Amino acid sequence: MSCPYATSRRGMLVGAGGLLAATTVRASAQTQLQSRVQTQGQTQGQTQGQTQGQTGPAAAEAFYGAHQAGIATPQQTHCYVMALDLTTTRRADVVALLQAWTEAAARMTAGKTAEPLSTDLSRPRGDGGSALDLPPSRLTLTFGFGAGLFVQKGADRYGLAAQRPAALVDLPRFNGDQLDPKRCGGDLMVQACADDPQVAFHAVRELVRIAYDRAHPRWAQSGFLAAAPAGDTPRNLMGFRDGTQNPTTAGPPDLPGRFDDVVWAGAEGPAWMRGGSYLVARRIRISLEHWDRTEVDFQEQVIGRHKMSGAPLGKTAEFEPLGLDRVDSDGNPIIPQNAHVRLGAAAANGGAEILRRSYSYNDGLSFTAERWPPWRQGMMYDAGLLFLAYQRDPRTGFIRIFEPMSKLDALNQYVTHNGSGLFACPPGVVLGGYVGQSLFETAG
Amino acid sequence: MSCPYATSRRGMLVGAGGLLAATTVRASAQTQLQSRVQTQGQTQGQTQGQTQGQTGPAAAEAFYGAHQAGIATPQQTHCYVMALDLTTTRRADVVALLQAWTEAAARMTAGKTAEPLSTDLSRPRGDGGSALDLPPSRLTLTFGFGAGLFVQKGADRYGLAAQRPAALVDLPRFNGDQLDPKRCGGDLMVQACADDPQVAFHAVRELVRIAYDRAHPRWAQSGFLAAAPAGDTPRNLMGFRDGTQNPTTAGPPDLPGRFDDVVWAGAEGPAWMRGGSYLVARRIRISLEHWDRTEVDFQEQVIGRHKMSGAPLGKTAEFEPLGLDRVDSDGNPIIPQNAHVRLGAAAANGGAEILRRSYSYNDGLSFTAERWPPWRQGMMYDAGLLFLAYQRDPRTGFIRIFEPMSKLDALNQYVTHNGSGLFACPPGVVLGGYVGQSLFETAG
Repeated sequence: MSCPYATSRRGMLVGAGGLLAATTVRASAQTQLQSRVQTQGQTQGQTQGQTQGQTGPAAAEAFYGAHQAGIATPQQTHCYVMALDLTTTRRADVVALLQAWTEAAARMTAGKTAEPLSTDLSRPRGDGGSALDLPPSRLTLTFGFGAGLFVQKGADRYGLAAQRPAALVDLPRFNGDQLDPKRCGGDLMVQACADDPQVAFHAVRELVRIAYDRAHPRWAQSGFLAAAPAGDTPRNLMGFRDGTQNPTTAGPPDLPGRFDDVVWAGAEGPAWMRGGSYLVARRIRISLEHWDRTEVDFQEQVIGRHKMSGAPLGKTAEFEPLGLDRVDSDGNPIIPQNAHVRLGAAAANGGAEILRRSYSYNDGLSFTAERWPPWRQGMMYDAGLLFLAYQRDPRTGFIRIFEPMSKLDALNQYVTHNGSGLFACPPGVVLGGYVGQSLFETAG
Repeated sequence: MSCPYATSRRGMLVGAGGLLAATTVRASAQTQLQSRVQTQGQTQGQTQGQTQGQTGPAAAEAFYGAHQAGIATPQQTHCYVMALDLTTTRRADVVALLQAWTEAAARMTAGKTAEPLSTDLSRPRGDGGSALDLPPSRLTLTFGFGAGLFVQKGADRYGLAAQRPAALVDLPRFNGDQLDPKRCGGDLMVQACADDPQVAFHAVRELVRIAYDRAHPRWAQSGFLAAAPAGDTPRNLMGFRDGTQNPTTAGPPDLPGRFDDVVWAGAEGPAWMRGGSYLVARRIRISLEHWDRTEVDFQEQVIGRHKMSGAPLGKTAEFEPLGLDRVDSDGNPIIPQNAHVRLGAAAANGGAEILRRSYSYNDGLSFTAERWPPWRQGMMYDAGLLFLAYQRDPRTGFIRIFEPMSKLDALNQYVTHNGSGLFACPPGVVLGGYVGQSLFETAG
């Protein structure tokens, strides 16, 4: 077998001696050939949990497992989320696409090229090469299905209409929504997260290339997370710690199973979604110029926490209970009725919880108007939060929590939702299977 | 002295016991109070070179020195570049702004808050807090002056018209330019580079907050660089190594002084720019969908190098000389006449060279049309290169190199320049001085 290209870790290359020359390599080199770099013993069949605790750019997250990776996985520092519209009319094309995506995702997660490299230079190769030499960087790829996969304008495009979960609702219009149709919806969703932005973008680009004549990009958003010291809750662009109340897999002993209860779909819905999760994605622009000129004590009243410590108002430590019932000497609540943390708290929403896995975004400037005096109009930061929340059912999760928040939250004067999507993310993949197999086999 | 906030490295806080309570701290704690985190002995007066070779997030780049940092500094993994329009009519305001920016930049580079933290909670504090707890992350802040600082619509706004360097030309229109006025120009420019995107964005946001009633953001662009293994030339989004030909401070012994000659303005221009450099910024969208479906051998003909190795066509190692005179058995050049590397080479441009310090950008999708069959129109990647090039004179640097390239380069069918700026970046700052002091004192 001849192949003009073979990579190794340090860029020392078995290269073409000329345009048409090819260096013969042994067939035994094929395995290494497909690996972008030497990884630390990762194999394609590795299952989740094996890499827990491994750190550094060489660390890889397992692709196969009971749940899709990228949900319970500790957050990486970068993400790139894309929604696509299916352009094919054939169910078999969708299945073949998901099969090809699965194979490519498993390869890239392990630090390999998206497809085996073509040996024919006169054709596009199996990988565009923008992540060559880069380690796995904890890449995860998480796939979701929008309502359009099941029903589009009333049409059962792929024979899946009967399998649409009741939980995969059309999100209601929320108070204050300024949604841009170009930033909403999509039949398919891919969330790529990695500790290197180029690794995340590369992975989605390869999936898009593979999907070329079957699906077309609809919207995409990159995001990042500050590399907070280990154990710290990262601060968001507003300077407040964000995620303190999140359920964790390593939660306190008084909340056994809380994470699983909040995140994974169970027997209440269609069997094909069991072990999956529903993703609500919202692009939330924040009026940062305005926030940056707001008094700190007003910011703290808006959020309901102290800025430096992250503690609930009037308390000193970040993880203390909110104490929503506390009042001052005049009988007024310490944490205001319209404070963000109060309205978002499980106690205020009949126990409703979601797993937030959000990233900041920063798309430069665009023209907008301030929503608060001095009402300036002009080029303002197009930056804010790519809100990503996983839950077992959005009707009892995001919708229950956000419907009142959209009307009452003091934070609303600083934020504008301009993109939105809801996706059913099927359970994990077993070796030899493909993403969404349970759906297509159920409805076959 | 009382202050409700004091940070330490691990988020253990001396916090407010209640909304109006304040914890008294010793005056001796003031120094630590101003530091976002414990840094490794960095001090405000540190001069450049002291941190050379230090790595990891705790590493800091010195702010003060003969040249501004962020030019010769080894590239960090993230950047955020902003151009601003001056809104004040008073020269004294501009000087005061640059003085305040200098002080804040020196502080933030060392990992401190932008300004000393206000103890008055009823006012905005001296820092928005989005980089609290984050280490210096090799932050550099580099400042530049656009033509508008000197002359705007024929008016000498600040008494600086006579000091406009001849090298600070109005860039000519280049073939193929599709410039968006909202992404061009600006009176002032700030380039923030850091190994954490939140640190870079935070720094510019603080400068914008300080500039509030004197300058307003005009355009901004974030960018990133893959974390290539140490010593490797990073690959760009096209999958090719980018920067192989760059002059380096640690260049080969046969090119002594090449870096200095290429980058730093000398005695040929106004004295106030001596030791400074001129930055050309271009936002270059790349038709990545198209590139990803192009045959590898055609890509290599377009670039003039092999994709995997980065070697010149027909050679095997990245750093081999281009060998532009080589021909095949039919007498045709091995590296085509319209190949990107040939047109960009010093040998093709009378020895002209520039220091490229570019970043990839990734702003999701926007509507555009392919420039090549199959001529699709739709939502396409709004991604590509934030081209940043430093040079001692753009007339003998970027303009000389790019004028012919804009007409002949085979790469042009994949790329579109839609943003542009040229900025005179003054020399470095001495402790106690401010950015641009030599300009304002010359013209005083």
